[in-house]
Amino acid sequence: MQALLVKDGKIFYERDFPKAEPGPGEALIRLLQAGICSTDIEIVKGYAAFEGILGHEFVGIVEHAPDKSWVGKRVVGGINLGCSSCHVCHSHGPEHCPQRTVLGIIGHDGAFADYLILPQENLLIVPDDVPNTLAVFTEPLAAALRIREQIMVAPSMAAAVVGPGRLGLLIGQVLALAGTQVTMIGRRKESLDLPARLGLNTGLVDDFPDDAFDLVVEATGNQAGLINSLRMVRPLGTLVLKSTFAGSTTLDLSKLVVAEINVVGSRCGPFEPALRLLASQAINLELMIEAEYPLSNGIKAFEHASSPGVRKVLLRP
Amino acid sequence: MQALLVKDGKIFYERDFPKAEPGPGEALIRLLQAGICSTDIEIVKGYAAFEGILGHEFVGIVEHAPDKSWVGKRVVGGINLGCSSCHVCHSHGPEHCPQRTVLGIIGHDGAFADYLILPQENLLIVPDDVPNTLAVFTEPLAAALRIREQIMVAPSMAAAVVGPGRLGLLIGQVLALAGTQVTMIGRRKESLDLPARLGLNTGLVDDFPDDAFDLVVEATGNQAGLINSLRMVRPLGTLVLKSTFAGSTTLDLSKLVVAEINVVGSRCGPFEPALRLLASQAINLELMIEAEYPLSNGIKAFEHASSPGVRKVLLRP
Repeated sequence: MQALLVKDGKIFYERDFPKAEPGPGEALIRLLQAGICSTDIEIVKGYAAFEGILGHEFVGIVEHAPDKSWVGKRVVGGINLGCSSCHVCHSHGPEHCPQRTVLGIIGHDGAFADYLILPQENLLIVPDDVPNTLAVFTEPLAAALRIREQIMVAPSMAAAVVGPGRLGLLIGQVLALAGTQVTMIGRRKESLDLPARLGLNTGLVDDFPDDAFDLVVEATGNQAGLINSLRMVRPLGTLVLKSTFAGSTTLDLSKLVVAEINVVGSRCGPFEPALRLLASQAINLELMIEAEYPLSNGIKAFEHASSPGVRKVLLRP
Repeated sequence: MQALLVKDGKIFYERDFPKAEPGPGEALIRLLQAGICSTDIEIVKGYAAFEGILGHEFVGIVEHAPDKSWVGKRVVGGINLGCSSCHVCHSHGPEHCPQRTVLGIIGHDGAFADYLILPQENLLIVPDDVPNTLAVFTEPLAAALRIREQIMVAPSMAAAVVGPGRLGLLIGQVLALAGTQVTMIGRRKESLDLPARLGLNTGLVDDFPDDAFDLVVEATGNQAGLINSLRMVRPLGTLVLKSTFAGSTTLDLSKLVVAEINVVGSRCGPFEPALRLLASQAINLELMIEAEYPLSNGIKAFEHASSPGVRKVLLRP
């Protein structure tokens, strides 16, 4: 089968990669559509020291499953694979299992291939009226929704998202769902066009004074973004860290203590509500698609997705 | 009057410092006892760029107040002075007022003097059966209690306090009040004697694996302590930052995001419950007193308090 792989810090396209065989409890899924996430780009640079098939945003058709009723279903799937026996799996789920693997990120081949494998229990059926090009947003939309599972997003809060990129734009729309005013903050004027078209407030990072927001979501993953996010959150406010920081970060933590800021690390989120939001068309995703490439042109797709200001780049078999 | 002052990064003792006059709404308090806090030591080194009379842990006798019924009362006092008119003061209190001054820390002369001045509304009467040497712990005990106002400390949690110093020992005792098992973690074996005598679990920092605790309170204020605290808190756990970090700190924030850690900055706390705990003798403070010096020997007292492993050093007029 075709596959996009990472090895030794480089990305490779293989036309004849061996097709994996599903084990007990596992389903074989034929890829329909996949999406490139910033995490994928970081993985190619060395993040998580992953080697194998890339990709965790996908929609596909079940070709084999222990329960035959799944076969032929169009599905998305939770990307965390827990041991299913530890107290973390029992009390919370697979996302924090110390033995977990993660689709295309930790120890489990990913979705940028003709076929992928996931436990059947990870699968969710995509509603018929959600096209593949939107279903592929289920995973990042779930990650954005995770914030609303961790903290209360009050309608009258002043909220900001620092970093109007692919994930930031989903977060902004998710935070705005119940009437909260959300400001998308970027460093370049051009980066604010799309959030403005999505109906969100926008501003450049230097436009805002210290302590301007009740809630700030950091979605840049870089040190300057973090420093500005901490600067703009008010005393007793909440700072959500949504992007992984590669390597060490240097910052002045005194505000965090003196102003009693609550910092919340946030990662994977719930797929079912994400699918409901996709079905209800509550999130504008059409504007967020930049381009689509076949897997055979995947290296070019990664180059495209790595350019600044580029929206979601999709892959197809 | 006598006063211990900081100016240009140095500490001075003055025998004839001009006695301040209380303004409208303010009380004049004659010092009975004061305590040296690590923050005072940091201020002498330049923290908060404060100049003036040091000190914020005190107990005294009211000599003048707008409401004469306060005169002669033995009091402690909240150290934050807000504007009383902004929305922060109205909704939360003076601790986060952007215009606030803070006794002996920001723009308001402190308690290491024969007399100090505070708004009458900041005062609280000390119960008769609490001696001065213990009443002086009201402020740091309130700061420790603040944690319990910010997060739920569950009885079955595994909790740790990194840094078995003056504040750490109060925090450890406060976290243990409802049956929670608390481990005090230090770098030197000698630093664990006192916490063990206080009935707390103890261990050296290298004794504990990653993810060992549900709740970790960072009470060292140094980078190594913070890195270890983050290392030892479990996924979905809580890290409380209780000590102010001077200058920049460098750390790897990826665990914070991937393990969805909740970080809570924590500062000043509630005096009334602290006074109730002092009256009920629920916190062992006798063991925490190292020495007492007269104000006239205050510079020596600071030297003593600055040595590693030293417990609370008290001052008297």
